[in-house]
Amino acid sequence: MSILIRGGTVVTAEQSFRSDVFCDNGMIVAVGDGLDAPTGAEVVDAGGQYVMPGGIDPHTHMELPFMGTVASEDFFSGTSAGAAGGNTMIIDFVIPAPQQSLIEAYHQWRGWAEKAATDYSFHVAVTWWGDQVKEEMGVLTREHGVNSFKHFMAYKGAIMVDDGVLLNSFARAQELGALCTVHAENGDAVFHLQKSLLEQGITGPEGHALSRPPQVEGEAAQRAIAIANVLGAPVYIVHVSTEQATQAIARARAAGHRVYGEVLPQHLVIDESVYRDPDWQTAAAYVMSPPFRPKHHQEALWAGLASGGLQTTATDHCCFCAPQKAAGRDNFTKIPNGTGGIEDRMSILWHNGVGTGRLTPNEFVRITSTNCAQIFNLYPRKGAVQVGADADLVVWDPAGTRTISAKTHHQNVDFNIYEGMEVTGVARHTISQGNLVWTDGDLRTVRGAGRYIDRPCHPPVFRAIDRYNELHKAVGVDREVSTAVTP
Amino acid sequence: MSILIRGGTVVTAEQSFRSDVFCDNGMIVAVGDGLDAPTGAEVVDAGGQYVMPGGIDPHTHMELPFMGTVASEDFFSGTSAGAAGGNTMIIDFVIPAPQQSLIEAYHQWRGWAEKAATDYSFHVAVTWWGDQVKEEMGVLTREHGVNSFKHFMAYKGAIMVDDGVLLNSFARAQELGALCTVHAENGDAVFHLQKSLLEQGITGPEGHALSRPPQVEGEAAQRAIAIANVLGAPVYIVHVSTEQATQAIARARAAGHRVYGEVLPQHLVIDESVYRDPDWQTAAAYVMSPPFRPKHHQEALWAGLASGGLQTTATDHCCFCAPQKAAGRDNFTKIPNGTGGIEDRMSILWHNGVGTGRLTPNEFVRITSTNCAQIFNLYPRKGAVQVGADADLVVWDPAGTRTISAKTHHQNVDFNIYEGMEVTGVARHTISQGNLVWTDGDLRTVRGAGRYIDRPCHPPVFRAIDRYNELHKAVGVDREVSTAVTP
Amino acid sequence: MSILIRGGTVVTAEQSFRSDVFCDNGMIVAVGDGLDAPTGAEVVDAGGQYVMPGGIDPHTHMELPFMGTVASEDFFSGTSAGAAGGNTMIIDFVIPAPQQSLIEAYHQWRGWAEKAATDYSFHVAVTWWGDQVKEEMGVLTREHGVNSFKHFMAYKGAIMVDDGVLLNSFARAQELGALCTVHAENGDAVFHLQKSLLEQGITGPEGHALSRPPQVEGEAAQRAIAIANVLGAPVYIVHVSTEQATQAIARARAAGHRVYGEVLPQHLVIDESVYRDPDWQTAAAYVMSPPFRPKHHQEALWAGLASGGLQTTATDHCCFCAPQKAAGRDNFTKIPNGTGGIEDRMSILWHNGVGTGRLTPNEFVRITSTNCAQIFNLYPRKGAVQVGADADLVVWDPAGTRTISAKTHHQNVDFNIYEGMEVTGVARHTISQGNLVWTDGDLRTVRGAGRYIDRPCHPPVFRAIDRYNELHKAVGVDREVSTAVTP
Amino acid sequence: MSILIRGGTVVTAEQSFRSDVFCDNGMIVAVGDGLDAPTGAEVVDAGGQYVMPGGIDPHTHMELPFMGTVASEDFFSGTSAGAAGGNTMIIDFVIPAPQQSLIEAYHQWRGWAEKAATDYSFHVAVTWWGDQVKEEMGVLTREHGVNSFKHFMAYKGAIMVDDGVLLNSFARAQELGALCTVHAENGDAVFHLQKSLLEQGITGPEGHALSRPPQVEGEAAQRAIAIANVLGAPVYIVHVSTEQATQAIARARAAGHRVYGEVLPQHLVIDESVYRDPDWQTAAAYVMSPPFRPKHHQEALWAGLASGGLQTTATDHCCFCAPQKAAGRDNFTKIPNGTGGIEDRMSILWHNGVGTGRLTPNEFVRITSTNCAQIFNLYPRKGAVQVGADADLVVWDPAGTRTISAKTHHQNVDFNIYEGMEVTGVARHTISQGNLVWTDGDLRTVRGAGRYIDRPCHPPVFRAIDRYNELHKAVGVDREVSTAVTP
Ligand SMILES: [Zn+2]
Ligand SMILES: [Zn+2]
Ligand SMILES: [Zn+2]
Ligand SMILES: [Zn+2]
Ligand SMILES: [Zn+2]
Ligand SMILES: [Zn+2]
Ligand SMILES: [Zn+2]
Ligand SMILES: [Zn+2]
Repeated sequence: MSILIRGGTVVTAEQSFRSDVFCDNGMIVAVGDGLDAPTGAEVVDAGGQYVMPGGIDPHTHMELPFMGTVASEDFFSGTSAGAAGGNTMIIDFVIPAPQQSLIEAYHQWRGWAEKAATDYSFHVAVTWWGDQVKEEMGVLTREHGVNSFKHFMAYKGAIMVDDGVLLNSFARAQELGALCTVHAENGDAVFHLQKSLLEQGITGPEGHALSRPPQVEGEAAQRAIAIANVLGAPVYIVHVSTEQATQAIARARAAGHRVYGEVLPQHLVIDESVYRDPDWQTAAAYVMSPPFRPKHHQEALWAGLASGGLQTTATDHCCFCAPQKAAGRDNFTKIPNGTGGIEDRMSILWHNGVGTGRLTPNEFVRITSTNCAQIFNLYPRKGAVQVGADADLVVWDPAGTRTISAKTHHQNVDFNIYEGMEVTGVARHTISQGNLVWTDGDLRTVRGAGRYIDRPCHPPVFRAIDRYNELHKAVGVDREVSTAVTP
Repeated sequence: MSILIRGGTVVTAEQSFRSDVFCDNGMIVAVGDGLDAPTGAEVVDAGGQYVMPGGIDPHTHMELPFMGTVASEDFFSGTSAGAAGGNTMIIDFVIPAPQQSLIEAYHQWRGWAEKAATDYSFHVAVTWWGDQVKEEMGVLTREHGVNSFKHFMAYKGAIMVDDGVLLNSFARAQELGALCTVHAENGDAVFHLQKSLLEQGITGPEGHALSRPPQVEGEAAQRAIAIANVLGAPVYIVHVSTEQATQAIARARAAGHRVYGEVLPQHLVIDESVYRDPDWQTAAAYVMSPPFRPKHHQEALWAGLASGGLQTTATDHCCFCAPQKAAGRDNFTKIPNGTGGIEDRMSILWHNGVGTGRLTPNEFVRITSTNCAQIFNLYPRKGAVQVGADADLVVWDPAGTRTISAKTHHQNVDFNIYEGMEVTGVARHTISQGNLVWTDGDLRTVRGAGRYIDRPCHPPVFRAIDRYNELHKAVGVDREVSTAVTP
Repeated sequence: MSILIRGGTVVTAEQSFRSDVFCDNGMIVAVGDGLDAPTGAEVVDAGGQYVMPGGIDPHTHMELPFMGTVASEDFFSGTSAGAAGGNTMIIDFVIPAPQQSLIEAYHQWRGWAEKAATDYSFHVAVTWWGDQVKEEMGVLTREHGVNSFKHFMAYKGAIMVDDGVLLNSFARAQELGALCTVHAENGDAVFHLQKSLLEQGITGPEGHALSRPPQVEGEAAQRAIAIANVLGAPVYIVHVSTEQATQAIARARAAGHRVYGEVLPQHLVIDESVYRDPDWQTAAAYVMSPPFRPKHHQEALWAGLASGGLQTTATDHCCFCAPQKAAGRDNFTKIPNGTGGIEDRMSILWHNGVGTGRLTPNEFVRITSTNCAQIFNLYPRKGAVQVGADADLVVWDPAGTRTISAKTHHQNVDFNIYEGMEVTGVARHTISQGNLVWTDGDLRTVRGAGRYIDRPCHPPVFRAIDRYNELHKAVGVDREVSTAVTP
Repeated sequence: MSILIRGGTVVTAEQSFRSDVFCDNGMIVAVGDGLDAPTGAEVVDAGGQYVMPGGIDPHTHMELPFMGTVASEDFFSGTSAGAAGGNTMIIDFVIPAPQQSLIEAYHQWRGWAEKAATDYSFHVAVTWWGDQVKEEMGVLTREHGVNSFKHFMAYKGAIMVDDGVLLNSFARAQELGALCTVHAENGDAVFHLQKSLLEQGITGPEGHALSRPPQVEGEAAQRAIAIANVLGAPVYIVHVSTEQATQAIARARAAGHRVYGEVLPQHLVIDESVYRDPDWQTAAAYVMSPPFRPKHHQEALWAGLASGGLQTTATDHCCFCAPQKAAGRDNFTKIPNGTGGIEDRMSILWHNGVGTGRLTPNEFVRITSTNCAQIFNLYPRKGAVQVGADADLVVWDPAGTRTISAKTHHQNVDFNIYEGMEVTGVARHTISQGNLVWTDGDLRTVRGAGRYIDRPCHPPVFRAIDRYNELHKAVGVDREVSTAVTP
């Protein structure tokens, strides 16, 4: 099947230009003015629209088993909702239980993901340490297209790892040319505060935010960066939500260290007041980690995205419905952590970013797609509008509007954290592997159409880092040890 | 004339890929594997080489009348030497005398530049203020392709402007969609220190550095940024040489302000000790402003380039020979300020940046060409390897070496500040407007072949800024002024 | 006359201890437990009270001729109101008109100040430059007990000085062992913004704040610090009101530079929303420079005071009544700048500082009295409770409350910016030169009882700075200037 | 016994003044001019000398059992050497083995310390956690005069504690009004790097520094501060040796957090190059943690002391002789960590601080004595020259010189890290409890003369903090939990 996108303005991370785009066999085969549509080709009118690389969401948790339940959104429904929002790929997480084989877990997740409608890939979490883990990290990179490993510095007693594990895993990943990512919250501090708040009788969702103050994230981000730094390794901080973590990243980058930060749109537009909603169910619906923050943190995050200090945007899409959230009715620590939003990320960012002059359309593409593709070594197969790239595109209507609501969204969850927001900037058409999967409000995704995408290790930045480390490695002093003195 | 570059690896700011590049009529007309050379096309073998956008030097001063003399390098010799170093374009400066018409000065410089061998453009300096200047800034942007204005915060008593001028000029430029740039040194402080040092009997070149300590630059950078910021205008700091200015830029960017910084390779590899050389002539040869710095500043600059906190590299190429420098034999304030290096910028940056693992090859392209093209709105005509772009290319030999020396360089100056340095990474072939102007050591530039390149105002980032400013403009309070009280 | 303060807790910057204090002949002659009152001595019962050094306000403008009018509070009424608030000394400002002799202006102000009820001293402003100024600075320090000079970086076209003047004056003061202080706002930027706002039709008091955004202060503070730094001179920033200036000071101090910052209580508790009051007269009453700020700046100022990053508190007491403010009815730039508060400084700081746990009582003494006395070389004559010190004391009732109001205050102005605030912590008795001038609500100040206090140059910190500068002075290179080359 | 110090200049943290000082019965009983010496009183001529509070060293490890050996300096020899250097008190550390009773360890150390020549006190380390520890912390504060607890974030596998312990201990201490202190190095990172260096074959003392890079300290300092901050607790970082930790402290203080930092003189004047000494024994002699650093860190530390960002100076006096150090001949991780210097702290700081203009004499007193006394709640019994204070004094000869050497020092160790340094500024006489224990080179300390000094909890700053925390405590939301939804 072939498709001609005609009359639009191609917008990439670098430039904008009037051009048609022709796709065939799932690939972009021509980018240029006045292209002819071969017989049988579908023609999409992109007049007045922007043709951009499809959004890539590098942080989702479809059908995640977590906190005693399973996320309501599965790989099909989730990638479909993503497509309705202009996304054409996700990177989800394989999260082995402590002591579980990483390979075994990897295959488990691969199995679940077979129903995905668009392309996908997996970060693999390192939730424990041992020779087996070290060995399996190698296997995953060599045989399974994994080039990134995730680490949880929170969730004590479950999947949290300590600094010893971080050091071992970061060092191993560096050896393999793979990137380490971290969920940066000091899990010991969270645990301590949770206990203390419950003892004070604070059991509601407001306790969630109170138990995870901004310093808890700032500290962990700083720590992960320092640990990576002593090993000469790059590091990627997921869901940066605070000024403190943003500054920690900025300080590291200003010192020449390769550190990346990811932002979620919800942290850019929602603040901590939601946890004090008088309605428990509403407040609980916003429970995710890191929590929403005092409003002034948002400025730091927007500035980070505009300046390049923060590079990517994701959703941490992880849906739990009201009956699931209700598990924590008497104890906020039992509310399953997670919010949805894969369908809304692009619109929220366009409306609040491009629409307010904080971002250019090119910067929008950079932070929703291109940077992610480059950091995770998918570029230019993904994240680009160029001949030879996958035909994963979104035709974006900069003037289109919609009102976000759980009543109309395609996500499999009964709440929308952006409920009632009217946004300008919508995905008019989404093209995945050269197929129209979302067009003018019609969702045409196909169960299982998505492919697992291998991500090779050692992207260019690793070659630079390896060179740098080689030139700065520790050197011993050649000396005779004094024999005059004995212990 | 057409030319096929065969077998190389195309390296852009975003990616590297094996590809041939075919140029015709001064443009890139095909980028792809296995291209055929039409009859008559010249074929360049790029096996083992990188095919990159030609270097753009956004800061040169060819044949500048300055401090009672004229820079020894003219537009032909300078752009030729640049071509030998892999450069295909410069942006030089029109510097009107105070009270001189900007238009008149512009035409003066256009006249001098007609001999240029490669493409060029001009920033225009605002060295005084008045209705005429305001009006002529408009004419320059509308009729003469100027989209950037330069301001000197130093050189008191000559071309220095005060904050009042900066405010007027920045506001006017913002209105026009043009970018303001500044030479950031506190000229009053320099003047005061010069006087004080001379009174102490310090007359040699070491006085040059002592009269321009790092704070003098840090202060001015911070001030220019603050002034731009209160006007909602972006600003570009030329030749950032200190940790302090780098941090001022980083702070502004982290606060969401659009600020850019340019670095000179000489500040990355040469330190202030040169001014204490026992040989006066040698010490004087290094006199430029801002001066070379204590070594630790270099780390901040490298990190700025790698992290994106600093965006461009230039040379401030401004050559004076020994007899010219000798004007300051008894008084360092009379030594003409300036050093050369257009021929060496790319090699110095490759060797010390890519060769040490501080930069990837893509980042090298970004800071030597692409960012400059984007910031000054030349992209993608310049700074890109893509169909439709100007055929301004360099075939870079990453393994080639050369030893830099005034004896062998093509620059019209009797001293080379990098004398004796052996660098790996050299321009094997340079292609300007589709012509081989430098090939395997053979310099074939043609006097007058360079074209003046118009740079339109209002690049994408200005559209974002305008939107932001519109949403944040000052709003008055509607009130009845109390009539009860009279003065 | 002698007086025994019995049964209180002496609180100094260093410690708190139960002790009586006996004063005779205007001096403290005994500090100890169980002191006996000689016959005729007045006895003050300080049970449950704190006996502290009287407040020193280092920044007032009594009867200042300014913006076409004269401040309504004179030296008698002002120092009396100060006494009612626990203050026993002020340092006011001699502000010569440009071109006026500093000595002449000094004598003018000395004449006006003869009516003062408590001790006082003068900073002298340098509002222009010339040999006469340089010479007179020397005379003032040698013959008139002046050890600090003030500089206005704002008020363009009136008393503003440029960087050249700052450099000359700072260098001269450094030579004399005197401290330079600055009003840090970029006057050019203010002027530009004022003009621009008026052109937009914004004429009300809100324009005052809009024309002086935080960056305008941050920039100037940073600049003054840099200028002082290149000269090896300390510097004192008056009325720091922003996060930016606080950070500039902190950065300088962290780099080893001797920089001081002063805070006004009004900036700690009032925010910029007052300028949008629908009542013009109310909004105008708050017009002072720097203006009130967005609320988050207050946190930085409080932290600065607690951490020692900011050292002193003052009032910038400068009163204009409604008919005077009305001069700017049609144009905010004509509203006389100034607010009062000398009577309320101590209570506002105690209530909002000690009462909230931001400050200890000792820190309260440090920032209201001791640091000021040390920085301006009045210590331990002032700022201490010890034998030999002046008997300038306040008996502070930590549990006393009062409601601030223009209806009840002793200040000669028709508005109180703290109107209606109820504060805990009040001056129960104030003792000046050993006399009760305020006791249980009875104001007993005597016109003309205040003395001019000489402040010698070269306090200890200057001796350290001089030593440091001596060791770090510029050193020339001894070399033969090459004769081979001639210009 | 009584003693009159005649003709000197009393120097305190606040002021300097000519005065005699008379001591009787171990206390200062008079401070004033022209005091008469009673019959039998010893008279010390202090002409041309400074009379200052005796130095307090808040960080020593006399006869510490550590790394398989015991520190060579015992409480008698150590406090005697301290007295020879102008010190009159130490605060040493009780370091329970994991699982050992804190009370039991406390008594052990009390026993060892009975031989001390001057006054002393103890911090108690929390090296493990449990109900017993929590309970015993209370007993120590209530019954044993302990108001500070120490935590090791390094020494993995020995006395290191994890964040969970820090949280529990900090919270408990806060409840008790006691101050927590930390040795800030990330022990996991050190352990990882040690292992990695040994694997690379780096076994010499240079490995010690390589395994503990600056980030390892910066990280831990930042973490300890963040943990304290989420609990609303103050925290004291011992032996700050890096720019990173200094900045972490400065950031916290600028945010209003009560954080203190201690500096060792050795980190101010010795750099990391010592570990590359070709003589193993020499290099090993410098092995202590944190290690010596690249030179530029010293500037940050000096500036911290001058600006008040860092408050105290200590020695971490912990002596091991060459045969002890030799335990690590084949493996740097086995070299006992520690260096001596209690005899030299004051001279090193005076010479390099006051002598270079970095510090005033008053600041010298503040950082060697007064701040320590205030932070650890010994003031004004210690750290002051005032009636009622302990007669712990040093008569300081600002012009006296000595050359430091192991050959002449009184420390019980065979190496002096300051060997050969000639310093100006020496203790001429040291008076402990009113007795001359060091006079003109004659050491007269008496074994067992020192007293254990109780330090009560809840100094003034804790009262402020408690108030602040009370006003900012977590508040729950009062709501009906929705009953509509069940899990
Ligand atoms: Zn997470
Ligand atoms: Zn997640
Ligand atoms: Zn310049
Ligand atoms: Zn230039
Ligand atoms: Zn002012
Ligand atoms: Zn004022
Ligand atoms: Zn330690
Ligand atoms: Zn220790």
